[in-house]
Amino acid sequence: MRKTQDQKPLSKEDRKALLAFLSRFVSEARRQKMAAVLRHRTRHITVLLEDIYQPQNASAVLRTCDALGLQDVYIAENWNAYRFNPDVSLGAEKWLTIHRFRHPGCTEGGLEAMRTPPSSFPATEEAMQHLRAKGYLLVATSPHTDSCSLEDIPLTRKVAFLFGNEREGLSAYALAHADMHLRLPMYGFVESYNISVSAAITLFSVTERLRRSDAPWRLSEDEQEEILLMWLRCSAPSGEALERLFWRRYHEAKTQALSSPCEEE
Amino acid sequence: MRKTQDQKPLSKEDRKALLAFLSRFVSEARRQKMAAVLRHRTRHITVLLEDIYQPQNASAVLRTCDALGLQDVYIAENWNAYRFNPDVSLGAEKWLTIHRFRHPGCTEGGLEAMRTPPSSFPATEEAMQHLRAKGYLLVATSPHTDSCSLEDIPLTRKVAFLFGNEREGLSAYALAHADMHLRLPMYGFVESYNISVSAAITLFSVTERLRRSDAPWRLSEDEQEEILLMWLRCSAPSGEALERLFWRRYHEAKTQALSSPCEEE
Repeated sequence: MRKTQDQKPLSKEDRKALLAFLSRFVSEARRQKMAAVLRHRTRHITVLLEDIYQPQNASAVLRTCDALGLQDVYIAENWNAYRFNPDVSLGAEKWLTIHRFRHPGCTEGGLEAMRTPPSSFPATEEAMQHLRAKGYLLVATSPHTDSCSLEDIPLTRKVAFLFGNEREGLSAYALAHADMHLRLPMYGFVESYNISVSAAITLFSVTERLRRSDAPWRLSEDEQEEILLMWLRCSAPSGEALERLFWRRYHEAKTQALSSPCEEE
Repeated sequence: MRKTQDQKPLSKEDRKALLAFLSRFVSEARRQKMAAVLRHRTRHITVLLEDIYQPQNASAVLRTCDALGLQDVYIAENWNAYRFNPDVSLGAEKWLTIHRFRHPGCTEGGLEAMRTPPSSFPATEEAMQHLRAKGYLLVATSPHTDSCSLEDIPLTRKVAFLFGNEREGLSAYALAHADMHLRLPMYGFVESYNISVSAAITLFSVTERLRRSDAPWRLSEDEQEEILLMWLRCSAPSGEALERLFWRRYHEAKTQALSSPCEEE
């Protein structure tokens, strides 16, 4: 059921060679921008979006994640297929690692068309298990639960914030299996924020606190290289063709180096 | 050009009598909710939205303003008529004082249809003059200006945040005549936040700081009564008919009191 943008891992040496090769095909300004963004990127905070209906909401959340320096976005499609609007996301999806957990029964507008809410949420279940296995604390953002506030979220651990759909909010499964429940401050008559607003307030507040903290929020060198490779692959013009050319030359050079007699002798 | 929801002011005595009368037609729970919201309401912070295109953005901002306890929203319609989507605002507009500054030349989708950006912004000009006369510091939120950060906004004065449209951002007029320019933190590739996200981050951050400060952010008793009257007028069933009934009885009672002989004599 899982579908991500991950490619098969390369050895460190192969990756470094490929990075050096692909880097030549993007401008100096772009390389500097990528390096600057990588220095502020984090996997310490992430989000799980569950059955979001409206493309403009889904897209605004992606744009917020990129702008605030989050690398990963998890998407659970139980009954509603995820769509985004490129006019709102402004291409943010290109720079993020999107992890999709998709139930085969999901369709466009699937949840909206249902008369009664479904009772099973298999994609959410799998996504939450996956996040938990990676060490994330799972925080359900739910305006109807009188629970902890933003300042109570511990940042010594990795944290994943769960956001539900525009109509029903989070599923019963997500609410029951989260480690904590978060309530944003609200002083008016409306009983909830728009989903993209809720994500913005939550993520802005915790990432600002995280950057001032001692928590180990930065990416490792290995992670930085992996992500840089993903960015170069989609930034270099004709990226796939270039990569094929690189591997052909690289393997030829290796083979030649191994088979040719040593010149010193 | 100005069009607001204001009604003609009543004397204190008349207003108190009308408040007491209308209060009887809403539930106790609703009265308590109104009192609680009024305690957290503020006019110390406000927003001016300039030529917003997308109803879902305009509506999400209204919902955020209500939820964060802002009472006033200013809308400048230079070339683009303001529309909102009630599915997104969830009725927030009913609880806010909306001040519209509307240029007669504005139409639905007017700005989108223009080939070159207009050079005059008469509605913005009038709205900014109005806000300045009320003592507001005018802060332009503009991602391309390298200027102050959220923490630099002084809260000892009343502050109005200016947000521009989805495509061009703020007008040249607004950028040139604002007192300060604000840049939100951004760590990714995208160069701006969605307008409703930008408003949410700005308003959440400053209102949280305001509530912990000594600044005189609460409404006066007079303001509270005026706003409560507005809320009761639109909450009581058949509010207008009820109010006509009240005034007829009230004037009859006053006339009778003045004309009848004093019983003590």
